[in-house]
Amino acid sequence: MSPQVLPGTERQLAFRRELLDRGHLIETGVDGVYGLGPDFEDVRRRFDALVTRVAAPDDAVRMHFPPVLPLRTLEATGYVGSFPHLCSVVHAFEGDAVEARTMAELAEKHADWGDHLVQSDLALVPACCYPVYPAIAARGRLSVGGVVVDAGAAYAFRNEPSEDPARLRAFHQREIVRIGEPAAVEAWRDRWRDRSVALLRGLGLDATCDTAGDAFFGRAGRMLAATQRRDGLKFEVLAPIAGDAPTALASFNYHRDHFGALFGLELAGGGPAHTACLGFGEERVVMALLAAHGSAVSDWPSEVRAQLWEA
Amino acid sequence: MSPQVLPGTERQLAFRRELLDRGHLIETGVDGVYGLGPDFEDVRRRFDALVTRVAAPDDAVRMHFPPVLPLRTLEATGYVGSFPHLCSVVHAFEGDAVEARTMAELAEKHADWGDHLVQSDLALVPACCYPVYPAIAARGRLSVGGVVVDAGAAYAFRNEPSEDPARLRAFHQREIVRIGEPAAVEAWRDRWRDRSVALLRGLGLDATCDTAGDAFFGRAGRMLAATQRRDGLKFEVLAPIAGDAPTALASFNYHRDHFGALFGLELAGGGPAHTACLGFGEERVVMALLAAHGSAVSDWPSEVRAQLWEA
Repeated sequence: MSPQVLPGTERQLAFRRELLDRGHLIETGVDGVYGLGPDFEDVRRRFDALVTRVAAPDDAVRMHFPPVLPLRTLEATGYVGSFPHLCSVVHAFEGDAVEARTMAELAEKHADWGDHLVQSDLALVPACCYPVYPAIAARGRLSVGGVVVDAGAAYAFRNEPSEDPARLRAFHQREIVRIGEPAAVEAWRDRWRDRSVALLRGLGLDATCDTAGDAFFGRAGRMLAATQRRDGLKFEVLAPIAGDAPTALASFNYHRDHFGALFGLELAGGGPAHTACLGFGEERVVMALLAAHGSAVSDWPSEVRAQLWEA
Repeated sequence: MSPQVLPGTERQLAFRRELLDRGHLIETGVDGVYGLGPDFEDVRRRFDALVTRVAAPDDAVRMHFPPVLPLRTLEATGYVGSFPHLCSVVHAFEGDAVEARTMAELAEKHADWGDHLVQSDLALVPACCYPVYPAIAARGRLSVGGVVVDAGAAYAFRNEPSEDPARLRAFHQREIVRIGEPAAVEAWRDRWRDRSVALLRGLGLDATCDTAGDAFFGRAGRMLAATQRRDGLKFEVLAPIAGDAPTALASFNYHRDHFGALFGLELAGGGPAHTACLGFGEERVVMALLAAHGSAVSDWPSEVRAQLWEA
């Protein structure tokens, strides 16, 4: 079943057309799911390496997680209640040979064969910090000072098809997580907010910072987002891509002790740890660079190229 | 619903224990889905870069695809009929606020909430060559000589939970695809078979090559695999990990004109192109290296480290 597609503005559609024509995106037939062309993917990886260099002083624990996580972990985060419309769950076949044949016949005709599948024990990762919390909790009580975890670049999924090329259903999130005492977590968040703005301005982007709210589901969700905004729990770093307003390239969430309590993250001195996370949307960063400096990467300003091609 | 887990042998369980204890794998609570520790991921990326260096003379077109592909593409390949038991399909929510609340309550109790989801238009990628065929077909008729496509390292999924750490449900496939005239495709496949064996032997692995058959579903599937084996359409490069027999680290499939006809890949002179693909299972390569040279990466033989740390 094809979900409803959010229409793009004329400018967003023109930008998508340009990205496709220049081979930066590759059509798959589904809005929000594209292949990445060689220059696009090269810049994305170079930006990722630049974040690694900027993050070096944090001396982070490095972990890489696959794009699926246990359904139980997703359930434990409360994501299903907050973002039911964005959930992507893996369904799989457990029937016999006769049912397999019926199912394959439906599939061949491109008819719906979902009734022959059952909910498996996996979901697609909606936020790359989620697998980190149980992994750190399993190590036992935190050391004094807590921990920084660099989860690298991993795929995140949001079931929100759109014609806006900056709203992907599958995208690379470069995720860093801070777990520790409230003051340390807030200081880390504030430091990275400044670092992120400086990093993106250094690449010639008109980056600004603002408080934000998550796209919680429904009417109750709008209230949650307002509270989040009022309490300054979510910040975004934005820059122009092809929207009427700037687009978020990075976001910071401060969860207070929400995940600490849920996953049993215990401070050195006892009590639930506070957590915050930072995620760069890497495809959006590349799109902002293409929008700012043009679609021929080799013609980008030398100061920008120097930053990315340095290592 | 937790699918049935294939039991591991004593040696496989001991190897998994060692990988977990050394921090090379990180438990998620689901068999076959692990986080990757820093040394493991570092070696994986270095191996990937080594393949890039070896592949350089091929002058490949580079494309990167996300871990989901349009359901229609999966359906078109015939995968649902051949491998129903391995399919992983994305199901999503399209209900209203009332249904969302019911669903979230089930999820909170870790009860099955799959009935509230519908089959979306996406599936998880089971083989990283699949998105390549329609992308190349969309460019129009091939040039003389055809094309080599390097799809880089991307995640592939197989719904086959196992206690054997070498049988992952989500793993990195480094995929290269050859599309062209039959003779050119076969010559490419044979050249890479030799290159792959040499590459892995250069890393101190006891690599060998053998014909193989795919794990097609059911009784009819076993006949298909026997034919595939007889006709020499599938080769594997194997090396010891923790199984009783060596484990496949790379596989080569020659599809003749199967995908060429299905996706309309047309030769310069007309007629459907032939295709072949090569996929390295990168986590398996790292595990074979750990099995051969020990779990302390810094103690690996200097000739092996020189290969990987060269660039």
